[in-house]
Amino acid sequence: MRKSILCVALFLNGIILFAQTNEEQTLKEIYKSSLTNAKCYPWLDHLSNKIGSRLSGSIGAEKAVLYTKAQLETLGLDRVYLQEVMVPKWVRGEKETAYIVDNRTKINVPICALGGSVATSKNGLTAEVIEVRSIKELTDLGVAKIKGKIVFFNRPMEDAQIESFNAYGGAGDQRYAGAKEASKFGAVGTIVRSLNLRLDDLPHTGAQSYGDIPKSQYIPAAAISTNGAELLSKTLKSNPNLKFYFKQSCKQFDDVLSYNVIGEIKGSEHPENIMVVGGHLDSWDLADGSHDDGAGVVQSMEVVNIFKNLGYKPKNTLRVVLFMNEENGLRGGLKYEELAQANKENHIFALESDSGGFSPRGFSLEADDANFNKIQSWKNLFEPYLIHSFTKGHSGSDIGPLTSKTIVKAGLKPDSQRYFDYHHAANDTFDAINKRELELGAATMASLLYLIDQNGIVNTVKAQ
Amino acid sequence: MRKSILCVALFLNGIILFAQTNEEQTLKEIYKSSLTNAKCYPWLDHLSNKIGSRLSGSIGAEKAVLYTKAQLETLGLDRVYLQEVMVPKWVRGEKETAYIVDNRTKINVPICALGGSVATSKNGLTAEVIEVRSIKELTDLGVAKIKGKIVFFNRPMEDAQIESFNAYGGAGDQRYAGAKEASKFGAVGTIVRSLNLRLDDLPHTGAQSYGDIPKSQYIPAAAISTNGAELLSKTLKSNPNLKFYFKQSCKQFDDVLSYNVIGEIKGSEHPENIMVVGGHLDSWDLADGSHDDGAGVVQSMEVVNIFKNLGYKPKNTLRVVLFMNEENGLRGGLKYEELAQANKENHIFALESDSGGFSPRGFSLEADDANFNKIQSWKNLFEPYLIHSFTKGHSGSDIGPLTSKTIVKAGLKPDSQRYFDYHHAANDTFDAINKRELELGAATMASLLYLIDQNGIVNTVKAQ
Repeated sequence: MRKSILCVALFLNGIILFAQTNEEQTLKEIYKSSLTNAKCYPWLDHLSNKIGSRLSGSIGAEKAVLYTKAQLETLGLDRVYLQEVMVPKWVRGEKETAYIVDNRTKINVPICALGGSVATSKNGLTAEVIEVRSIKELTDLGVAKIKGKIVFFNRPMEDAQIESFNAYGGAGDQRYAGAKEASKFGAVGTIVRSLNLRLDDLPHTGAQSYGDIPKSQYIPAAAISTNGAELLSKTLKSNPNLKFYFKQSCKQFDDVLSYNVIGEIKGSEHPENIMVVGGHLDSWDLADGSHDDGAGVVQSMEVVNIFKNLGYKPKNTLRVVLFMNEENGLRGGLKYEELAQANKENHIFALESDSGGFSPRGFSLEADDANFNKIQSWKNLFEPYLIHSFTKGHSGSDIGPLTSKTIVKAGLKPDSQRYFDYHHAANDTFDAINKRELELGAATMASLLYLIDQNGIVNTVKAQ
Repeated sequence: MRKSILCVALFLNGIILFAQTNEEQTLKEIYKSSLTNAKCYPWLDHLSNKIGSRLSGSIGAEKAVLYTKAQLETLGLDRVYLQEVMVPKWVRGEKETAYIVDNRTKINVPICALGGSVATSKNGLTAEVIEVRSIKELTDLGVAKIKGKIVFFNRPMEDAQIESFNAYGGAGDQRYAGAKEASKFGAVGTIVRSLNLRLDDLPHTGAQSYGDIPKSQYIPAAAISTNGAELLSKTLKSNPNLKFYFKQSCKQFDDVLSYNVIGEIKGSEHPENIMVVGGHLDSWDLADGSHDDGAGVVQSMEVVNIFKNLGYKPKNTLRVVLFMNEENGLRGGLKYEELAQANKENHIFALESDSGGFSPRGFSLEADDANFNKIQSWKNLFEPYLIHSFTKGHSGSDIGPLTSKTIVKAGLKPDSQRYFDYHHAANDTFDAINKRELELGAATMASLLYLIDQNGIVNTVKAQ
């Protein structure tokens, strides 16, 4: 009896050891393939330098759909197709201008309209400025102090945060909801300090929403560079009656037709189980969006290229989904989920890369404990590649809407320190990408997909 | 009896828990201080943008000695002093020129002389080229194939390596020993592919040595950009008889007097035990050396600033040592050790930062098992700061000569992917530094020094 138990134990240990060795070897091949034979860097070069910015509804976005579809078609997938989705079309118009009027001196400062904002009048807008640090402070000041003024939201991202995304989370409400809230107290416009941890001259755009306030109460909203914010704040201290002028001519048009781009490999054993890997194809309009999220797009495509180079056929269906309109609407993610529901599809796993193309550090996971622990148990496999951070947290915006019965979601977690130097600003360009960091990210994604494909997920309760 | 054992156990657990909680709290304060109240970034701005390149024996190096000494004097140390050291003085002279002569076409390529190389004749040097991948290949070819030619060393750094320093290690012999070896077979000059993982137009300099061959056999040695190397290799394939022209006017002068800069806080409990933290003050001459090693210099100074801000008085003596002449001689490190021996000093710990100012990932440790395990046991304290990599390996060149009876040595290990994009090239400038990454590195160094200071090292055998 004892002997046979021992034999079974040794046998099982042998299987586990064999599996681990196999997996170790495959990860080695995945990383080698990506570092020596990847296409993601030239793909991103084309997307960034030949196509350029890709705001939803723009010509660039349309070109990016056609280009990535054509590239996916070269990879021998079972199916490559477009998924129709209506997207908002917001256009910046002429370059914005702004200056501080300090007594008789005009000091130019760099601003840009926030996505979704209305224009100022043709001649621009001039008003006194009131600086606040939060929406609460705005509310406390009330109509008496706000009416007729430009509200200047100037709470910086918190330097002491180790992860820059936490600093972003702590300051983001000013940009997203500032105009809506200020309008309620009679403000005539808002200027928000750019969501950038460093001091420089670049204004950072991003989505803002008027929520459900009446259209007649929409007020123009812009971002000012961090140096500009410092200057405005300092000048306000010496002259609280200074005036601020800004002019922007942005406009919201009717929704237009666009597409999610999808490539699929049918699973060899469980074609009904779907694993998604993706990023978003749209970018802001100020730059070519190489980090946000050109990197995530080409890394997701690279996963297929790596599997092709290795001759690896997934057991479950693998779908590369290049989502449209993450930045100002999330329509691509919502449409994808709507159709997944309509077609009664079973998604077991979704992985998004939308945190920049920097050195990969790990994954942020939306998973129940059983699956979180299962993924954690692969930590040693990732150690040789310096992938060490497996935490519970936000995975990705585009895969957010996905609600299969049991699903694990993951976001690639690159080093975050430089991300907000570029995020939504004019310098988010191809030269800020390091080829090896991009490729290491793609390999890290391919490795997790491979391990999920081999080992499955634990079918417990629905993931958070 | 049982009860009392339990009590003792609980008491000891309490002490350990209390110590850990204290240490946790101190690390939190160290990182906060560095991210919100550091001087390292403005110090580096001055060193890079006001002083510039700092090759040993240059005016820049002299200015850097005076500047860092003056800054250390503002930090309330017990003693700040200079340590005399004679250093080599090599001067590049006029900017180098080079071109490929392919039949009647001249194609310019970017080169730079390697440090320590001799000049070509005034009119430059023209010869046929033989491409090799290694010193072994050179030796196999022998005099018949080499004599009268320029040897072109073209083995690239290996892309598949995860850590870029391993790729550097695997290709570095071509630069350091290529000219010496080629000269033995009658070569008239050498051109080495720049030690850079990416393809670009920047030549990367670095030290080379003629070893013990007679001076009459010294031949000019230069580096060519990676794009230039690709072009030369391709052109050689279609025209093996092409000629290569290059001209450089570099010169070795007599040694000159320079200095290590040292700042010291006397230990409150064990003044006889010395902990060193440092980087090297000299840089190559092509750029201001912000990563190599301006970053290490200002991070080492920041450690003192952090301790000052926290009001932390080390139990052991803490010395900031800014070494001179790491790049082409290591004279500063050798002199420091010589005087440490002469003064019978007892060094227990040395930490160097000389791998760039990128996001810190961990430490490379030269320690016996007992000390390695002790440092590993602090891993959980570092986890909130994303410091995860504690490996045995090379610590730092400047602290290499140190040979106290029992000493632990550590090198800060930043993310290495981008390092060789800048290393020894004209783009190693201040704009390639991210303020937060630099500050996180300084905090990581201060944290390890604090933990060593609190817990001591294990006095076992001499470290490797």
